[in-house]
Amino acid sequence: MLRREINELLTQTGPGTPMGELFRQYWFPACLAEELPEDGAPPVRLKLLGERMVAFRDSYGRYGLIDEFCAHRGASLWFGRNEDGGLRCPYHGWKYDTTGQCTEVPSEADNSSFAENVKLTAYPLVKIGDILWTYMGDPAKQPPLPEYEFALVPPEQTYTSKRWQQSNWLQAFEGGIDSSHVTFLHSGGLKSDPLFKGAKGNQYNLNDTKPFFEVADSDGGLFVGARRNAEEGQYYWRITPWVMPNFTMVPPRGDHPIHGHFWVPIDDENCWAYSFDYHPVRALTPEERQAMIDGHGVHSKNIPGTYRPVANMDNDYLMNREKQKSGEWYSGVEGIAIQDSSLQESMGPIVDRTKERLVPADSGIIKARQKLRKAALALRDHGTTPPGVDPKHHHVRSAAVVLPQAEAFLDAAREDVTVRPGMPVSSV
Amino acid sequence: MLRREINELLTQTGPGTPMGELFRQYWFPACLAEELPEDGAPPVRLKLLGERMVAFRDSYGRYGLIDEFCAHRGASLWFGRNEDGGLRCPYHGWKYDTTGQCTEVPSEADNSSFAENVKLTAYPLVKIGDILWTYMGDPAKQPPLPEYEFALVPPEQTYTSKRWQQSNWLQAFEGGIDSSHVTFLHSGGLKSDPLFKGAKGNQYNLNDTKPFFEVADSDGGLFVGARRNAEEGQYYWRITPWVMPNFTMVPPRGDHPIHGHFWVPIDDENCWAYSFDYHPVRALTPEERQAMIDGHGVHSKNIPGTYRPVANMDNDYLMNREKQKSGEWYSGVEGIAIQDSSLQESMGPIVDRTKERLVPADSGIIKARQKLRKAALALRDHGTTPPGVDPKHHHVRSAAVVLPQAEAFLDAAREDVTVRPGMPVSSV
Amino acid sequence: MLRREINELLTQTGPGTPMGELFRQYWFPACLAEELPEDGAPPVRLKLLGERMVAFRDSYGRYGLIDEFCAHRGASLWFGRNEDGGLRCPYHGWKYDTTGQCTEVPSEADNSSFAENVKLTAYPLVKIGDILWTYMGDPAKQPPLPEYEFALVPPEQTYTSKRWQQSNWLQAFEGGIDSSHVTFLHSGGLKSDPLFKGAKGNQYNLNDTKPFFEVADSDGGLFVGARRNAEEGQYYWRITPWVMPNFTMVPPRGDHPIHGHFWVPIDDENCWAYSFDYHPVRALTPEERQAMIDGHGVHSKNIPGTYRPVANMDNDYLMNREKQKSGEWYSGVEGIAIQDSSLQESMGPIVDRTKERLVPADSGIIKARQKLRKAALALRDHGTTPPGVDPKHHHVRSAAVVLPQAEAFLDAAREDVTVRPGMPVSSV
Repeated sequence: MLRREINELLTQTGPGTPMGELFRQYWFPACLAEELPEDGAPPVRLKLLGERMVAFRDSYGRYGLIDEFCAHRGASLWFGRNEDGGLRCPYHGWKYDTTGQCTEVPSEADNSSFAENVKLTAYPLVKIGDILWTYMGDPAKQPPLPEYEFALVPPEQTYTSKRWQQSNWLQAFEGGIDSSHVTFLHSGGLKSDPLFKGAKGNQYNLNDTKPFFEVADSDGGLFVGARRNAEEGQYYWRITPWVMPNFTMVPPRGDHPIHGHFWVPIDDENCWAYSFDYHPVRALTPEERQAMIDGHGVHSKNIPGTYRPVANMDNDYLMNREKQKSGEWYSGVEGIAIQDSSLQESMGPIVDRTKERLVPADSGIIKARQKLRKAALALRDHGTTPPGVDPKHHHVRSAAVVLPQAEAFLDAAREDVTVRPGMPVSSV
Repeated sequence: MLRREINELLTQTGPGTPMGELFRQYWFPACLAEELPEDGAPPVRLKLLGERMVAFRDSYGRYGLIDEFCAHRGASLWFGRNEDGGLRCPYHGWKYDTTGQCTEVPSEADNSSFAENVKLTAYPLVKIGDILWTYMGDPAKQPPLPEYEFALVPPEQTYTSKRWQQSNWLQAFEGGIDSSHVTFLHSGGLKSDPLFKGAKGNQYNLNDTKPFFEVADSDGGLFVGARRNAEEGQYYWRITPWVMPNFTMVPPRGDHPIHGHFWVPIDDENCWAYSFDYHPVRALTPEERQAMIDGHGVHSKNIPGTYRPVANMDNDYLMNREKQKSGEWYSGVEGIAIQDSSLQESMGPIVDRTKERLVPADSGIIKARQKLRKAALALRDHGTTPPGVDPKHHHVRSAAVVLPQAEAFLDAAREDVTVRPGMPVSSV
Repeated sequence: MLRREINELLTQTGPGTPMGELFRQYWFPACLAEELPEDGAPPVRLKLLGERMVAFRDSYGRYGLIDEFCAHRGASLWFGRNEDGGLRCPYHGWKYDTTGQCTEVPSEADNSSFAENVKLTAYPLVKIGDILWTYMGDPAKQPPLPEYEFALVPPEQTYTSKRWQQSNWLQAFEGGIDSSHVTFLHSGGLKSDPLFKGAKGNQYNLNDTKPFFEVADSDGGLFVGARRNAEEGQYYWRITPWVMPNFTMVPPRGDHPIHGHFWVPIDDENCWAYSFDYHPVRALTPEERQAMIDGHGVHSKNIPGTYRPVANMDNDYLMNREKQKSGEWYSGVEGIAIQDSSLQESMGPIVDRTKERLVPADSGIIKARQKLRKAALALRDHGTTPPGVDPKHHHVRSAAVVLPQAEAFLDAAREDVTVRPGMPVSSV
């Protein structure tokens, strides 16, 4: 149970809010690189942390993320013409470069300095891997670029999709560090999903419905360990890393690619779920890549031309009561991603956490909220740089390991949860 | 004309409002029995008096009406799995029985008493006739079950449908006790509707556009008498009973089945219109039943799989100006139910009664509002049990009778407006 | 940049607002005459200045604009039956004439005077040209009828369409006196639109992207002069008249018909754009008329049976990035009207003018806002009749003329901007 004020603190990310300022300390995904596929591509409308922006890639290949609205009279630059080195408002021809600098106001005299004094709010936009990353905070405090492994491996080893979720970011994120629901909600997927099935660890998962949770601090956030019974004298540990504020990874299964998410607030009632899959030591197979494109694993099948899932709240997620009854789809909804989003959206756009009843299995969620709150208040009150800003904090992996019962999970698995380039993940 | 405060008092039925508390003294329809057609059927989402609930019928045939949202983290139990003796949230497997009691929290130890202390808000749900009835008030004050005749006759003698109306319950209800509009709005239906036409009384109805109204108190509410001229020295009386707070019956016509409504608040801007038809002494004919299914009489043709009428505000109720002109459909809208709902919805979700101008023909409405207000305030201020709670108050019928001009309608028709099992209704 | 209070003053036109009262001093278009095509036609729902009304044409050909809602219990008179000399509410048969006077309450005794005391709010509705005009102010101050030339020429010489715009009236209107965007946004149209192309003046327009603006007061509002370079020693002047509060004309091109607009507030977030085309001295050719019907020139292609454009905000105005790139459609949107509406709607329903940055090319807009504000305050504080009420103020024309550089535009073009019946417009 959370007090109302704390629920508001954690869920509101607009400009000037404590949580919004916390988010503005980090690089995070602004959009997929595929959305700006070529120099001079059409601009893309984006809402991030409640701010309406356009992303564009100019004729010279430079990326920019600038205020959506022209400084002149407020027309949307989504209608902009992506011309030689800038984006031109089609209303009166004002032109902006990728830094938001106005470079031309045609109605002014040729020798006028008027344009020089016009600058739109703009944030950096940098391609790393399949993602265009932004940092929406104070330029003077801009941290080094992110170093998440999934974005740094060669392109043939990685795949990222995105999906619009109609809920606050926090309830989506909380699903991402909540290993205990897998046994129920995703039980069908463990048996049949091409990107999940067949791993030995799945049996531990399905056989033990009472995982015990241990949560340990990491430099950038947490490691959430879910312990289930394995063979005699041993435990099966699934370790979920969280890097603040919104990066999570799912523990791996067998030799399947490893996956995870970024949870990016659009506004207080919507977020983007970025879902990635990668393999640190080999290319994804054509079958794996196709399965991801088809919406298997952590990905979703989206309405063509959009990032909205085909199964969404307007069609009751295509609920199938027969498959619910048979257990093929435990909740009656198809696919791991939509199983999560359907329940998280069903809570309402911002769930009322004053009514919840948490249990020990929620200890990862409890700890994460505490860290978020503490970091947001320390930033607000003392200007403290929060965990997860330093790129070294990004060098984490999830792991699924069998350990002797006597060992402390993080002591035993410290290497397994650390990025070791060229080394496979630790996965059962 | 009503003062703003009184309009708000009568139209607001959420938890804690005076009118909401009044509604919570009574049994009323929660849904149709057909919505939970078998043991273990999928749960049904319902909003009643502003509260979001799910109705379900467990694997043993027990009915329950419980809070829509899981006590754990707030996922909707509409996604619930209707398993052995309970409804299981598919997120983390918490399970509830029909009383709202949590019976299982899988993440807890087998000997844990955690679940015992978790209980969702729940209300009784009881099948009588074609309806599942609920009582949403204090369990300590739960009254005996309802005894409306339409719900107690053998199944072959009765039929009930339901329809979503996009307006506050009060303006729908007011149409139900407003006998004076029939001569206009439903004049076409009197001539052509298979469930209305052919009765001798229809001619009195159509010939006299200036009915005189007399309203008399009953134990449970009112009898609204509408007096029209008949043969020399006689009056044609149409008597509409109202049982508080939301049960009304339409006066009968010839040997047609007799009909009426329950008006159930969904929230302050929506209500359910339950429409029933029954015959006290014979089975409905196949033709009558089919006509009801087809949306004739007081019923509506709904969008398949829903309780929303095909003709609704989004399509201007399929307005037909030619049939309006010819008078076949007096308002240009087809069907008695939609003729009513179209006009009532056109007033806006909550009509501004500070602007209305009532006339003597509205005396039933005026009297009913006074009784509702008085009962709501007496309950709030003194805890007084309102009329209509006692099942004896439910034993009323509508009637259409020709009486000598000298007689007081209720003295003369006392038997006609009382349920007499096995006796036909009094109908001209 | 405008202060918030002034933005609110200029954009709010509901009853009792200063700008709303200003609008209520004038005749302006309520609907097109084609919407009430014959005596006894179905009534039409209209929202004007935030007031919900129905327009109707009774069986004797009289026009009326009356409160949408029946005085009895508030049913919408859009469902009314247009019967002998009045509109009858189909609920209980109350009947109203075109002045809003209730003429019949059927439930009342034949000798009752009840109906006499019931009168709905009503405004005059007068057909002049293709438009039904209304005046929504104090009847005691009703000014003479409007005398705009486009509405007074013979029917074969004029054409008017209307289009729903999803923005406040002011940002639509500001586009109407903003001659500087033509060079950009409409550059494609100058070359290809059948109602624009081929005029010699278009070349001046396209060649000089830095028009100089001079704004001069007129009796009824302003003349906005946009000066571009022409042949040696000469200027090409495009003169846009504005008659307060919401009438604007586009400067003509060659022998094309001349055009302009009325911008009528529906409510604070929607307006009607009336678009007219006429020729003062000849009939429109069949080709011209067909082009207007097809949505060329200042007109739009609307969804059949509605006045909503086919290209609208729900479909991103059918944006075509290829035609944007080629310049055929400068913004990627087809058609002059939708090029304007798309950008104006993209600013949001009421653009935040505290953030704008105006330039000398906006001097017409700046001056117009000042006049509107001054007139609204003078009316409110001193009851001053504003400019544009007097029909003599309506006798203006736009003009496109080439003048010697030394001449003051309004001195030189005074005759050109004045209606001279039977004389052609001054157009290059």
